[in-house]
Order: sequence, then structure tokens, then C-alpha cells
Amino acid sequence: MIPPLMIEDTIKHALKEDLGQGDLTTLFTVPAEARGSGRILAKETGIIAGLFVAAAVFHYVDHALQVERLVEDGTRVNSGQPVMRISGRLQAILSAERTALNFLQRLSGIATKTAAWVEVIKDYPVRLADTRKTTPGLRTLEKYAVAVGGGHNHRLALDGGVLIKDNHIRAAGGITAAIKAVRERAPFTVRIEVEVSDLAELKEALDAGADIIMLDNMDTATMRQAVALTAGRALLEASGNVTYERLAEIAATGVDIISCGALTHSFRSLDLSLLLD
Amino acid sequence: MIPPLMIEDTIKHALKEDLGQGDLTTLFTVPAEARGSGRILAKETGIIAGLFVAAAVFHYVDHALQVERLVEDGTRVNSGQPVMRISGRLQAILSAERTALNFLQRLSGIATKTAAWVEVIKDYPVRLADTRKTTPGLRTLEKYAVAVGGGHNHRLALDGGVLIKDNHIRAAGGITAAIKAVRERAPFTVRIEVEVSDLAELKEALDAGADIIMLDNMDTATMRQAVALTAGRALLEASGNVTYERLAEIAATGVDIISCGALTHSFRSLDLSLLLD
Amino acid sequence: MIPPLMIEDTIKHALKEDLGQGDLTTLFTVPAEARGSGRILAKETGIIAGLFVAAAVFHYVDHALQVERLVEDGTRVNSGQPVMRISGRLQAILSAERTALNFLQRLSGIATKTAAWVEVIKDYPVRLADTRKTTPGLRTLEKYAVAVGGGHNHRLALDGGVLIKDNHIRAAGGITAAIKAVRERAPFTVRIEVEVSDLAELKEALDAGADIIMLDNMDTATMRQAVALTAGRALLEASGNVTYERLAEIAATGVDIISCGALTHSFRSLDLSLLLD
Amino acid sequence: MIPPLMIEDTIKHALKEDLGQGDLTTLFTVPAEARGSGRILAKETGIIAGLFVAAAVFHYVDHALQVERLVEDGTRVNSGQPVMRISGRLQAILSAERTALNFLQRLSGIATKTAAWVEVIKDYPVRLADTRKTTPGLRTLEKYAVAVGGGHNHRLALDGGVLIKDNHIRAAGGITAAIKAVRERAPFTVRIEVEVSDLAELKEALDAGADIIMLDNMDTATMRQAVALTAGRALLEASGNVTYERLAEIAATGVDIISCGALTHSFRSLDLSLLLD
Amino acid sequence: MIPPLMIEDTIKHALKEDLGQGDLTTLFTVPAEARGSGRILAKETGIIAGLFVAAAVFHYVDHALQVERLVEDGTRVNSGQPVMRISGRLQAILSAERTALNFLQRLSGIATKTAAWVEVIKDYPVRLADTRKTTPGLRTLEKYAVAVGGGHNHRLALDGGVLIKDNHIRAAGGITAAIKAVRERAPFTVRIEVEVSDLAELKEALDAGADIIMLDNMDTATMRQAVALTAGRALLEASGNVTYERLAEIAATGVDIISCGALTHSFRSLDLSLLLD
Amino acid sequence: MIPPLMIEDTIKHALKEDLGQGDLTTLFTVPAEARGSGRILAKETGIIAGLFVAAAVFHYVDHALQVERLVEDGTRVNSGQPVMRISGRLQAILSAERTALNFLQRLSGIATKTAAWVEVIKDYPVRLADTRKTTPGLRTLEKYAVAVGGGHNHRLALDGGVLIKDNHIRAAGGITAAIKAVRERAPFTVRIEVEVSDLAELKEALDAGADIIMLDNMDTATMRQAVALTAGRALLEASGNVTYERLAEIAATGVDIISCGALTHSFRSLDLSLLLD
Repeated sequence: MIPPLMIEDTIKHALKEDLGQGDLTTLFTVPAEARGSGRILAKETGIIAGLFVAAAVFHYVDHALQVERLVEDGTRVNSGQPVMRISGRLQAILSAERTALNFLQRLSGIATKTAAWVEVIKDYPVRLADTRKTTPGLRTLEKYAVAVGGGHNHRLALDGGVLIKDNHIRAAGGITAAIKAVRERAPFTVRIEVEVSDLAELKEALDAGADIIMLDNMDTATMRQAVALTAGRALLEASGNVTYERLAEIAATGVDIISCGALTHSFRSLDLSLLLD
Repeated sequence: MIPPLMIEDTIKHALKEDLGQGDLTTLFTVPAEARGSGRILAKETGIIAGLFVAAAVFHYVDHALQVERLVEDGTRVNSGQPVMRISGRLQAILSAERTALNFLQRLSGIATKTAAWVEVIKDYPVRLADTRKTTPGLRTLEKYAVAVGGGHNHRLALDGGVLIKDNHIRAAGGITAAIKAVRERAPFTVRIEVEVSDLAELKEALDAGADIIMLDNMDTATMRQAVALTAGRALLEASGNVTYERLAEIAATGVDIISCGALTHSFRSLDLSLLLD
Repeated sequence: MIPPLMIEDTIKHALKEDLGQGDLTTLFTVPAEARGSGRILAKETGIIAGLFVAAAVFHYVDHALQVERLVEDGTRVNSGQPVMRISGRLQAILSAERTALNFLQRLSGIATKTAAWVEVIKDYPVRLADTRKTTPGLRTLEKYAVAVGGGHNHRLALDGGVLIKDNHIRAAGGITAAIKAVRERAPFTVRIEVEVSDLAELKEALDAGADIIMLDNMDTATMRQAVALTAGRALLEASGNVTYERLAEIAATGVDIISCGALTHSFRSLDLSLLLD
Repeated sequence: MIPPLMIEDTIKHALKEDLGQGDLTTLFTVPAEARGSGRILAKETGIIAGLFVAAAVFHYVDHALQVERLVEDGTRVNSGQPVMRISGRLQAILSAERTALNFLQRLSGIATKTAAWVEVIKDYPVRLADTRKTTPGLRTLEKYAVAVGGGHNHRLALDGGVLIKDNHIRAAGGITAAIKAVRERAPFTVRIEVEVSDLAELKEALDAGADIIMLDNMDTATMRQAVALTAGRALLEASGNVTYERLAEIAATGVDIISCGALTHSFRSLDLSLLLD
Repeated sequence: MIPPLMIEDTIKHALKEDLGQGDLTTLFTVPAEARGSGRILAKETGIIAGLFVAAAVFHYVDHALQVERLVEDGTRVNSGQPVMRISGRLQAILSAERTALNFLQRLSGIATKTAAWVEVIKDYPVRLADTRKTTPGLRTLEKYAVAVGGGHNHRLALDGGVLIKDNHIRAAGGITAAIKAVRERAPFTVRIEVEVSDLAELKEALDAGADIIMLDNMDTATMRQAVALTAGRALLEASGNVTYERLAEIAATGVDIISCGALTHSFRSLDLSLLLD
Repeated sequence: MIPPLMIEDTIKHALKEDLGQGDLTTLFTVPAEARGSGRILAKETGIIAGLFVAAAVFHYVDHALQVERLVEDGTRVNSGQPVMRISGRLQAILSAERTALNFLQRLSGIATKTAAWVEVIKDYPVRLADTRKTTPGLRTLEKYAVAVGGGHNHRLALDGGVLIKDNHIRAAGGITAAIKAVRERAPFTVRIEVEVSDLAELKEALDAGADIIMLDNMDTATMRQAVALTAGRALLEASGNVTYERLAEIAATGVDIISCGALTHSFRSLDLSLLLD
């Protein structure tokens, strides 16, 4: 569970962005004392993620709202299925509605997409991982949604792992030098990953003791050779040009991880709506 | 132009989210004094939006970075075309890269999608409009991207217009009562829009003096009747179940506005990458 | 009702500004465990506004304080009349007192002034409106106080309406061009207002389809002509040189709105004080 | 001079409050590249205060704006006299205008009122002081404006002095006990002031070693006796029911300080406007 | 008691700094629903300070945690003695543990050091005072810990007192001129302290009416002369080169205050740990 | 280099904490236009760390101050040696002085202590590492100072590594289960460390594939056995009861890392002062 403290600012900022100086429509059409209740319904099939975020949105508008989760995050819901029930002051419910849905639809969309991709490779001993290509401001939540969908998280931020890419290698004077420099100075609590583009680089990275090796934009045949060559000495991550169509084929090469930015940078929000009783 | 003040917090927050307590890889592989330059390249065809945001990202990491825009927002670029050039301390360029791209790819993705949809209806006197279904925290930027793509902005926030929906109508005791209540109390600087689901409601809304009327999930034939019945007395906005396939058909009904949440809640990021020289 | 979220930062900032590193006097003269109660009393006749703000101030100092509103916002109170009762830890009551009163006295002062001005024109079908000449940081609250006093709100911020003034007209190349430019690009949810200084400009604005026209510093006779000329095609707002003495005379011209910056930039705070039991 | 850091948040918050999601009018009527210049003019006689705040407002909207102060804070200006010149991007000047004026008009209003009151008592060895009855959020700036007008500052916040009032005395068990408690525990860097309502309390306060004694709502004759009785052993501050009409009479009693909340809670803003060249 | 509002940001910031994007270990080893309890134990003898801060840390991670203080701030505890009991969701307890202890250990360390120093001089009518040499961001809390340990607080910040040092004297043109300048313009609620380095300067400061005089780096004999010369006309503060070994000797000179930066800039944290039941 | 963005809030907060509503002494004794220069001098031998922080402090008070570093971070300086030169407006230099020194003295104190400890073990292939026992709010800076002193950083925050302690093991149902749970769900970019208290636990941790094993409070003989038993299969970290006196003895056991909370929770600030020219 993500401590509320970690998402408080994100939620409050989103609400203020939507409220501006007030929800004019609701203020002037709904009596301040009117009470009501409603449910958030799925309008298509998908995986729900982010119910605690939606609940927090309602509570930041009015602490007295009653919010009941009707399913848990990770549940596959069908069209028409209610996922959350809210009751209390009607003005508060209506003013919070859009922001609550904006969070919930996006996170559920990511979880749904991830689950669909994971399904394809479920018979292989491989992980589907996200990247740092997340929406600015929503990193923690989107990585959470990937996990809800059955995916795995790559490093959470630039301080949570070392990933030596081409530009770093050039600046450091080669793969071996780069790995050595990092091993001497970075916190010993993080693993060292290196991006390689061919088998020669892979060998150098293995010899230099890389913990994880990213096979960048390799074709399937080369990946298979990389797996053989590595023989378990490091984790292998396939990256670049990863499409739904290629997933199974990549998984079959024997790599440990397939990472894909599109899980968080290009997805459809899940269709959900709030229906008052 | 969006004043920098308006996006300062959003950008700084995104950078801190990605940096955490530091970019370990870059810190330890790239010499602090190393300098370099690079270009952001399009890797597919699309409309660029958000170059000033990307530029600000680089500057918030290091004020001394030189950033040159090679195209203007709104330009249609092709695969391989450079859109921005950055030079200065290499550590700063690399640490800012991902955040800059995360903004630029999303905003360009929205502009590109909007432009494609606008193209379909360009021969009709109709506007394609966004909604409040934007990413939490990125409202101003995403609405800007819609405009760059040739779309129009619906109200920016809950205080920038009145949109009386079904729940408001029920709470206020009817369309006429709702419009009256708002007209008496809301700032007289905003227009009053009402959502209707059939022609009877449309008539009531017109008689009550609505400025804009949202035709919610109407079929094409009914929309055509609505246009005839309205006869210019209010702006008509088609909303709900708006797909790329139905766009031209809806435009042909004569409505003034077609609004679509998917412009901002479900889109592909434009593929862009930073290439060091 | 203004959601607490919207004023949380304003109230906390005001409290921190007053507390600095602590209320030395109270800390060292009042035992930490001492409890008490008190009432906020009016010390002159006026309209109360902002009780929920004062209540929030007390709660941000100590969540356990009991706060009871003895009247509602908008009530005309007399000297000696209690408006709020607070009980709980005495240190908290005393440390919050000044900040609570600072908000309540100002907002009540604005409501009181507004009510007095509205009284003058109550027999005319005209609205008394505020402007953007509000205290920096207190826009939402001061506009609320104007509404409590019976006034109406002009646009809440620069994004909540279009008001084309002389400088905009010059930059755009004339009234007609300015209106056209805005109509094509601004959100269609806001009305377009234009400032005019004579009848010729008024005609141009009407022909260009302005929704609201501000008659800037016009004498009463010209305003009367403006009303006749407009004949209901747009709302007319009298602005500039609006004094208490001229109110009735302006109202009698038939304009729809009289706006006045002095409601919020020059007013007397209502005299209120906290009396412990 | 107030370091910019101390007012940065206040100014940015005020600007964001006014901009919302953008200055629609200016964005769509003024070309982004248009440049211009203008002057802020006094429209009545008064004392200018806060030019550095207005300058900062313009700079926070656009760092490239050129701002030139034509007078210094504290200058008495006449109607028509220019006080500041701004040049650069026209959009930035217009979007910042209202916020800059909102600060400058209020602070100049306070300085002007203070100067008028100070003038009345200028031949007496007495100080006119402000109170903590300042606008929430603007304490530092308003106290600065009082000083510009020739007034003196009472404690800046609750941590900058000890002021033992009636409620504190009751809680501590008397004047002597209250002073003793504070002297033992409060920072020895602040003075101890006690509020008294009659001469008996005054004697007790003097005997207990108060540094400053506030004569609360005393009539003029009693104040005179208080001065005689005190004989320079403590500073005497007249407070309560201080009106412009009574100022000279109070000053003549020989008190050291006259404090007045109305300097900051009830004042007229100085009329100023921006005129483009 | 320090109002929670005053330390909310400090605590939340510390927690976010430690949590980053989540407590990976706890999230994946401890079931979300697991509940437990534990106690914070002293592991050496010392004075406890900051229990309310530690309690707030736990509550900001999970409002539902039950926190019970087993001793009060200021209690001298022995090794093995429990000082606080926490029960509730185990994940929350473990994720908050380090931050709670980081605060509590430092503040207790300061209180313990202060108490040890105060013990040395307890038979003299002298105060041991802190300085502004506190940890950036923790001023209020560290000064509180000094008070808990029996020390006194020097000014809390630059606005809570006047302390004229050598550089100020030079800039103002001498001690007398400096005191005069401050007396005329600073709030009359703060005392004026001057730093002197010999008896001649002391005499000038006394004649100019300084309230407090800091004897800077004086030897014991000179301090004794200073006390005699001053004869109670001002408070005397010994400062500079104050060591534990010299404390009694300095106290014996008759100065009123001994101030020491090392109370807050160089101390050992008290050893405390959390033991789950 | 730490990007300025990462410490901006920390520095601004520290300055505001010290300035309150203004540096009264400096404002009223030093003419606003006075200019000057000064140097920060070491007053004892030590390692300098944090010059960029001190420079930023001066710049946040006045952007126009000229700051020149006379040594680099990591330099061992002697008493009397200047480390930084500042010139510009004298008011700004004096108002920033204390906050700049408060940062610089602490960080240099940590670097100095770390360097002294590292010196003891410099002939062993072992690292001296910090912990999360850092000052709340200063994590990044204190870890930086440890690195400047020649120490190594343990995980930066709870999201930058997995460290399974006793409580986690109990909750997860044993060492093996805990490691398995984490390996399946935590980002694969971080290493998994387990705390063990005897050789049996060590064996279990090794068999379960721990990357790093913390030997908690082991005596030297047991540590030696642990090294032999591990035989390079994992990194070994000695922790608990690490004193300066035991350092060499622990290093000689052959462990890879010695970690010590006292580097950041209990240290002496380095004596530094600002001397105006």
C-alpha cells in the first residue's frame, strides 16, 4: 500500500487544477445541504487500479464522504459492474467526480494493458517490465498500476539503479571503464545494468561483471545467442521495438525481462463513470 | 505563450520525481566537466508540441545549457527530423533527457492525434473540442497541445464555465430551474451550457436561454433535428460516443462543436529521442 | 461552500506568518493543559462573512477545538452579538485568535460595504459587481464576501472570461478584429466583454457580437444613450468613477451591471473581538 | 530592503491566483512577439510604497522585462506623476499589470494613511505604531509600508515580543505571576509588555518590571496620570479607540507610543494605473 | 507545546526523503493487513525530547496508528526504559521507524548535552543559552530541545532580537551610532544586544543604553571586571570559547548568560531503538 | 555534482527560518547601498564539504553577490585558511552568513569525521559506509559529505535497496521466505540485503541468494568465520557497535563494508567563520 503522504500533493494539486476558484455549476444548482450517493461503474471490461487514489480524491474534497470499495485493485471487472460507492454531501461528490475518475481511468487503463500483455507471455519464465517513460508527476502511481496488472517495475527513479547507456559508455571510455567507475562510487545497494547492442559488447559487459544487461533493439536470433552466451551470469533484458505482436517470440528466446515504455506512455484509459443513485 | 511561472512547479516536480537523490549512472560515468551537445529527433511523423516545456526542463537542471528550437510548436515533422538542439554540461543534458522527452512526447502525441481528427472535419464549420478528461496535473499543458493540433478548448476548469449535467438538473429541480439559479448567481462572464438527451430537453434548454447545449450520446438523425430546431439560438455540442469513424458524419449534422475526451485520455506518445553529437 | 482544500494553504500560511517560531506570551503564561471557551462578538453593526474561515483557523491550530457558529454568513449582526463560540485548549484558542479575527473582520467588512451599496440600488434591475482589484492571495475569499453582501462576481480570474480593454484593442487592430481573434481561439465557454469609451465604439462592439460591453467612465447621459442604443443585444456594465453618491443615478440609466473595485480595495474591517468566558 | 526570497512565494501565489490557466484576453488579442512600454501613474496624491514588489511581479511573469523605478519608496507623488516604467513583451506587461497594481496600490494606501496620521503628531516625542491586525499573508509587506509612511513597527509576529493581555494574566494568576513566568522562560532577547486597564494594574506591572506597558482604552486624563506615575520606568503605549481626531490629544499626554490597527485593517488603496506609451 | 502546524512540513519532508517512491523491503515482506506493536527503548541514559515529533511521524504515515507516550519530554531515562508505545498496521510502523528515531535521537541528544552542562552551573544565577548555530531546517525543534534540557533560548531568528556584532558596528560608524540607529527604527518590542571585545567597548555600549552586552571571547578576569563595571545596568552574555571545562569558571564571574553554539552544532544523538513486541 | 534543483527548497527553507520577517540588526545598522567583501576561513584543520551549498545560500539572498571558491570540496584545510570569498551588498552578505556557515560547518564536520575513520582502514579492502541515520531534511547533503570524506553510501532511501531486518523476517516467515517474496516483487534493479545475527542465519541467507548480508553486532571472531563461510558469494557488511577503536580490527576480518550511523548522527561541526575584509 502506498502511504497517503506519498500521493497527497499529487491529488491536491490535481483537484485545485480542476476546481480553480470553484465548481460554479455545482455551487449554484445543488443545495449545500443536499445529500446523495452514487457508484462508479465500469463501462467496459478491464483491470481496476487506483481505488485508494479515487477514495482519497473524494476525501480531500470532503472528509465526511463515505467511500466503500466494492472490488479490490487488480480485479477484472465487466461492463456495468460497480467498483466504488460514495455517499454524503452531493456538492462534494460532484465536484470531486472528474478528478477521481481521471486518476482511476488512467491507472486502470495501464493495468488493463499490462495484464493483456502479460497474458501473452504467461507460460514463459520472463517478466514484463515498465520503464521511466511515465507521465510527469505520476511515476509512483503508474508503476503501481503496472504491478497491479501483473507487470514488474524497472528502477523507480534515477537513484534506484544504475543503467549505463551508450552515452555514458562513450563518456566513461568504454563498458569496462564505466562499470568500474560506478562500482567504486555508487551505493553498493543497487545493481549495475549496461545496455549493449551486439554480442561483443555483451561479452565485455559480462566480463566486467554487469548484474543486468539490456539487449537493445536486437533481433530475435541474436537475443537467443545472447541468452546462450550469458548462461545465467547476468539478467538479460530485451528492450526496444517491443510490440504486442513480438512479445511471445521475444519471450521464447529465454531473456529474463522484456521492458516496454508503451505500457505507460501510450495506453487507453478504461471507461468508467459515476452514476448517482 | 504560457508564462514560465505557470508550469514551474509541474516541471520541477517531474524532475525531482525522476532524479530522486541523484542520477547515479551519470554522476559516476560522466566527468563533471565534460561538455557535449545533442539533438532531439523525431522518429516518426507527427505534430510537435511542448518545445518550451522541454527547454524549461533542461534549464531547471542547469541554467547554463544552451537550448535551440529547430522547429516551432505545431510543425509537422518527419522521422529523422531534429526538433531541438541542446549543448553544455553533459551530465545535465543526460540527467534531464528523460523528463524532457516525457513531456514532449506526450504533448506531441496529443497534438498529432488532434490534428488527425481535425483533418477529417476540416471542410465543415465545426470545432473539435477537448474536455476535462486530462491527465491530473497536466491540464494546462494538454489543453495547449490540443490547440496546437488545431482543436479548440472547452472550459479549462470548473470555474471557467457552467456545464449543467443530468445530476445538477435533478438536484436543481429541472433544466429551467437550474439555468435560472446559475444565471442569478454565477459570474456573468461565463456561458451557461446544459446537457440534454432528447429534443424535449433541448427545447426546454433553449427556452430557458442556455448559451450552449450539449447533445449527449444522440444518434446522427436526432442531432440533425436538434440543429434544425435550434436554428442558431445556441451553440450545439455533440458529445459522447465520438469516434474517429463517426467524426465526419457528426460534423455533417451541422453541430457547432464535437467534443472528445479521448484526445487527452487515450493517445499514443510521439516517438522522439535524444541523440548526442 | 468553498471546499476546505481551496483555502488550506492560505490559512496555514497566515497562521505561520503570525506564529513565527511560537506564541511566546501564551506558551509561558497559560498552562498547556488549561481549557476554556470564548465567543467572538460583533462590536458594531454589520454583515458577517467568513465564519468557516475563522473556524478553519482554530482547527488548524488544534483539531480538537470545538467551534460552533452562532449565526450564518450573511447575517446582519448588532454590537454585542456573539457570532461564534470556541472551546478547548486555551493556548490554542489564544494563539489562533488574531489570525481568525484578521480573516473574519476583513471579509465581514467587505460584505458590510457591499450590502450598504446594494441597498441603494435594490429597486433597480441592476447588479453590483466586484472586479479583480482584490487583495493578493485572497481573491476567492473576497469574491465570496462580495456575494455574501449581495453583490455579484465579475470574472474570478484571467481565465474565467474575456475582457478586451483599450490596450488589447490597439494591439489587435481594432474592436472588431479583437473580438474576432478571441472568438476563434478562446474557449467557447466564456463570454466576450469589450471596454468602450463612446457610442461609436459601442456600436462597433455590438456589431462585432460582444456579449458584454463595459461603458468606461461615461457620464450618466451617455450611459442612458448607450442603453437605448444597445436595446438588450448585450449586457452593459458601468465602470469607472463609481461612487456611493452616484450609484442610484447610474442604476437609473438602465445598465445591467455596475462594477466597483473599491468594494475590495478600500474598505473598513468590521470590528469584532474574542471574549473568553 | 526585503530580500526577494521573503516575498517570492507571496508574489507567485498572487500571480497564479490571477492567471488561473492563462490570460485569455491577452493571449488571443496581443501578438506574442509584440513589444511595448508603459508607465504606472499616480492618479491622486499620496506616498508610494512597494515599487520593488511591483517590479518583482513583472519579472516573475517575464524575466526579460525592463523595469525602471522613477521615484523611490516614500516619495510623495501627485496626480499624473509616473512612478515606474516597464518595457518589453506586451503580453507579459498586460498579464502582470493587475497583480502589480494590486500590491502597489494597497501598500501605497497604507503608507499614505500612516503619513497623514504621523503628520498630526510630528511635534510630539511619540511614535505611531502598527499592530498584528494586518492582512493575512501580507504581514511583512504591510509593516514595511507603515515604516515607509513614517510609522513604527510593533512586534512582527508572536515570536518577536511578549504582550501579556488580560486573558494571559487571568491564566497565569495575575500580572506579577505572568511577568515572572515569561521572564524565566521566554528568550531574553525580547521585551515584556503588559496590557493594563487602570492605574493599579499599571503600578503592579511597573513593580514587576515590565519593559513596556499598554494603556488599554484609557481616557486622556488617566493616560496623563499614567505617564506621571511611570516616570520613565517603562515605555507606555496607548491603544484602543485611537482615532485620527484623538491623535494629538493622546500624543500630548506624554505616552511613548500610540498604536492603531486601522493603519492596516481599514485603509483606502492609492489610485494608480498603468498607461501604455 | 509546539502547534502541529509548525512542524508539519518538516516532518512530511523528512518522511518523503526517506520513503522515496516506497519502502520496498516492508512492502514486499510484511502483509498489508498484518498488525503489531512495539516500543521505543532507551539504550543509554539521557533526557528524552521530541516525543510529540516522533508521534507525529507515525501519524503522518498512518493516521490510525495508536501512539502512547510512556514518559514526558524532559524525563531522564535509563538504558532499557521504554519511552513510547506504537501499535497498528505493521507496515506503517516499520516504514516510519527510522524517521521517527532520527528526530527523537537528535533532540534527545541535544537535551541530554544541555542538561549535563546546566548541571555544572546549577548553583550560579546564570543561564546557559543556545545560539543560531542550529541545523538548517530544525531551528524550532532544536531550540525546544535546549529548553527541555534546562537551557534558555537566545533569539529564535533574525527578527526576534537585535544583536549588533563587529561588522554591524563598523558599518554603522561605531557602537553608539549603531545602537541609536536600531533604537530609532527596529520594532520597540525587541531588546538591543551589542557584542564587545574589551572594557572600553563595554562602557560605550552601556552609555549608549544597550539592553544586553555580549562579552566576546573574554578571559575570565576581564569578564569579572565587566560584571563589576556593568553593575546590573545590562544583561551580560559570555560567548566564544565556551567549553564544558570552563563553564563553572565563567559562571563564577557573575555574568547573566553563557551561550554556546556547540549545544546544537556538535552533539551525540541519544541511542534509542524500536523493539517490536 | 548535485543539481541546484535538488537542494533549492532545503536552502530556501533554512534561510526563511533564520530570517523570519527580516534581519533587524543588519537592516538598521548597515546602509542598503554599502558594499563589501569577506572570506570564510577555517579555524581548525578538517575536510571542506558543501561549498556549493554555501554559495547557493548567498545567491538566494542576493543573486548579484560574487562568490568564489578558493578550494574544492574534499580539500584538507588548516586553521586560518580561506575557503570562499564573497563580495557585493554588505546587507546580503551579513544576512546570509549564519545559514551559509550552518550548512558548511555541518557538512565539513561529517566529511572530516569520515576521513579520519577512513584513514584507519585505508590499507584494507573494505568500505566505510553511512546509514539512513541522517538528519531529517538533509539526507542528500549528508550522504554527499560522507562521500567527500572518502566514505561510501549505503542505500539513499527506502526505495533504493532492500534491507531485510529481523522484523521483516519474522513477518515474512523466515529469511528464505522473505528473500523470495522480495525477489518476486521488488524492482530487479536493487540488491537484496539481509541482516543476520549468527552463522546459521548467514548460511540460510546465502542459500536463499542474498546479494549482501549484514552481520549485526557480531564479535570479531564470528565475523572472521562469516567471511570464510561466505567465500565471496555475497558482500558482507559489519554493522552495530562500530567504534573508532574497533575499526581496524573489524576491517581485518575481511568484511567488505563497515557501516556506521554515527558518521551522520553524532559529529562535531567544523569551526569556520566569515571575516569581512
